[in-house]
Amino acid sequence: MASASSCAIRCSRVSIRCSASSEGGGQGPHRSSNAVRVNGAAHRAPLQVGAALETSINRSLAELSAPVLTQPPPAGVGEERVRQNIPTEKQTVDPFRQALIVEGGVRYQQTLVVRSYEVGPDKTATMETVLNLLQETALNHVWMSGLLGDGFGATHGMIKNNLIWVVSRMHVQVDQYPIWGEVLDIDTWVGSSGKNGMRRDWLIRGRNSGEIFVRATSTWVMMNKVTRRLSKMPEEVRGEIAPWFIDRHAIEEEATEKIIKLDSNAKYVDSDLKPKRSDLDMNHHVNNVKYVRWMLETLPDQFLQQHQLSSIILEYRKECGSSDVVQSICQPDEDSILPQENVSMVIGPLLLPELITGHHSLAGALQQWPTKYTHLLQLKAGDKHDEIVRGRTTWKKKSHKAP
Amino acid sequence: MASASSCAIRCSRVSIRCSASSEGGGQGPHRSSNAVRVNGAAHRAPLQVGAALETSINRSLAELSAPVLTQPPPAGVGEERVRQNIPTEKQTVDPFRQALIVEGGVRYQQTLVVRSYEVGPDKTATMETVLNLLQETALNHVWMSGLLGDGFGATHGMIKNNLIWVVSRMHVQVDQYPIWGEVLDIDTWVGSSGKNGMRRDWLIRGRNSGEIFVRATSTWVMMNKVTRRLSKMPEEVRGEIAPWFIDRHAIEEEATEKIIKLDSNAKYVDSDLKPKRSDLDMNHHVNNVKYVRWMLETLPDQFLQQHQLSSIILEYRKECGSSDVVQSICQPDEDSILPQENVSMVIGPLLLPELITGHHSLAGALQQWPTKYTHLLQLKAGDKHDEIVRGRTTWKKKSHKAP
Repeated sequence: MASASSCAIRCSRVSIRCSASSEGGGQGPHRSSNAVRVNGAAHRAPLQVGAALETSINRSLAELSAPVLTQPPPAGVGEERVRQNIPTEKQTVDPFRQALIVEGGVRYQQTLVVRSYEVGPDKTATMETVLNLLQETALNHVWMSGLLGDGFGATHGMIKNNLIWVVSRMHVQVDQYPIWGEVLDIDTWVGSSGKNGMRRDWLIRGRNSGEIFVRATSTWVMMNKVTRRLSKMPEEVRGEIAPWFIDRHAIEEEATEKIIKLDSNAKYVDSDLKPKRSDLDMNHHVNNVKYVRWMLETLPDQFLQQHQLSSIILEYRKECGSSDVVQSICQPDEDSILPQENVSMVIGPLLLPELITGHHSLAGALQQWPTKYTHLLQLKAGDKHDEIVRGRTTWKKKSHKAP
Repeated sequence: MASASSCAIRCSRVSIRCSASSEGGGQGPHRSSNAVRVNGAAHRAPLQVGAALETSINRSLAELSAPVLTQPPPAGVGEERVRQNIPTEKQTVDPFRQALIVEGGVRYQQTLVVRSYEVGPDKTATMETVLNLLQETALNHVWMSGLLGDGFGATHGMIKNNLIWVVSRMHVQVDQYPIWGEVLDIDTWVGSSGKNGMRRDWLIRGRNSGEIFVRATSTWVMMNKVTRRLSKMPEEVRGEIAPWFIDRHAIEEEATEKIIKLDSNAKYVDSDLKPKRSDLDMNHHVNNVKYVRWMLETLPDQFLQQHQLSSIILEYRKECGSSDVVQSICQPDEDSILPQENVSMVIGPLLLPELITGHHSLAGALQQWPTKYTHLLQLKAGDKHDEIVRGRTTWKKKSHKAP
């Protein structure tokens, strides 16, 4: 298991390098102007959704009351597939998920409403919700493509070759967090990434304003389910997914910055973190959202109350299973404190000293926090520390007072 | 705070008694046959949903691209309400949530799809997901009624009187857990419960089969937001909500069984549980789902792998805030072990003794577990133990092998 995982790390790095080099040529100013045009608000299409809903009614009445399976399902999983309605041919409309395949039949678009249990005490969606929605729409995209074999987005060709998807890198930028009840349009598409990888991008827009709330990109590679080693992409699988590739980037990244490795001397350390049964996903790994929760929970409460996460980059190194014990480490960039308006004006002689220096004090509220942090989750097994995921987060002041 | 909470307990008990007595007359065989008729599969209405979607297209194009506010929103919350589209008049269709108001304009019905992040490793929704969906549809019901003032389902009249909803009892019965991608129809409605309470019921059906997966009922009372004391229902609020009352029960309960109080001598005890920021809901309390997670996590993994929760009853006593430290206590009903087929047949001489008695052993797998458990969450503050919530759970063997 140890050797397989160290291979995974090696291969994963190669894959990230490939992906950066193959995409590098397409980035820069030209790329940027192209992306702005494509990703702009003009892209919002309520009429299209209306038309799709109209189509969906006819479909839902005529077809969707019966399962859309066009081939007999494999024995044993038949009942499950019927209950799920997993199509075996490409669909252009999913009425129940309010989803469409658009743009030459390859880009996935879904409309959804932020649910009450997806927001925090301030009625605003969290980064965890954003990550959940990215996962959800990615899987629904594969679902509608007719390629979904089983499990976590694996295609028929991948299942035949015993392969699963593994994410090697993820970058999420949030301009604005959606609020409870807000209607969102989420777009996602895939592209090539080096010889053996796949890139997946997302845009989340508020339907009322058409503004882009979230931009995200990710890189995926294939892992053999049995050996746990990374795999080349078989031609059969490339044949399945390549027709879906779009050459467009949701985030204009400069040359990909490498995240430094932290050690236990970092400023914030949480040890002995143990995954619970409810933290496991359909692949029986600790899910991505739990990773991010562990990362962010090392930060002081007072910082979290005043700031919101505007960007997160994750570099995945190793799987984490249900019996692992995890350590979460975090180090601020001390030089990332923003120049601010002169706060000394409000600290006048009217304030008692204990208000300024005490617990939950004004001084705490006025403290100038770093806005950039480096993170590491690692496994603890004796003296050995295997890296699970490295992270970089960027924060901004909340615009209103947190409750 | 202590006196307010003890009042809450007293009042809550009164409310539960009232509710039981006022509902008792309506139950029994007559009630039962009525409920079966109303709650049966014939009730499933895909055509209605189709028609609603059709209506919704016209609405969404003509009206819903603009906010549905018909009165100017209060200053300061205007932008938020526009982003959320909270109606100030009763709506009969919510196209984005795929929801309708049916049955004489009072019952709420929503169609939704189980999302990938709402299922566990076995691709099956958990009790936590079920509870989330109950909360979600209840709030959406108030949302569509045009009564939603702000916060967690409080009406305009409640906000004027500084009141919030508090749940005093909840009972959820699960016949079948929905699976990833399954389309569900959820119905919810409210009724009276004693003089000062409200009852809310739910039915969750699988759209493909029309089978009822989940039945749930709950009792709600009003609490003053400032004093934290339970309150009578003001006439103004009764005037708002009484026109929505339906006299029908999703669960046919016998006389409500009282849940006994446990102490720390119980078989399973988890101490020092601390809520995290992400566990708080819009009311700044630890949310219901977290309570249930704490309750169930005291049970042994091996039991949880082999069994699924088929019923849970919760009796709420006291609020739990973000700085509280909680203890979760659980006691099995030793006499609730089900008579099973004779398992000695498979424990033959071919099996090594260590397989039978070791850790993760066959004996463990064959162990006959109790199927009924009593639970208690309590606050720990010195020698004093304030009860947060009592629970009763009933379990059944999973029909297929857990992964």
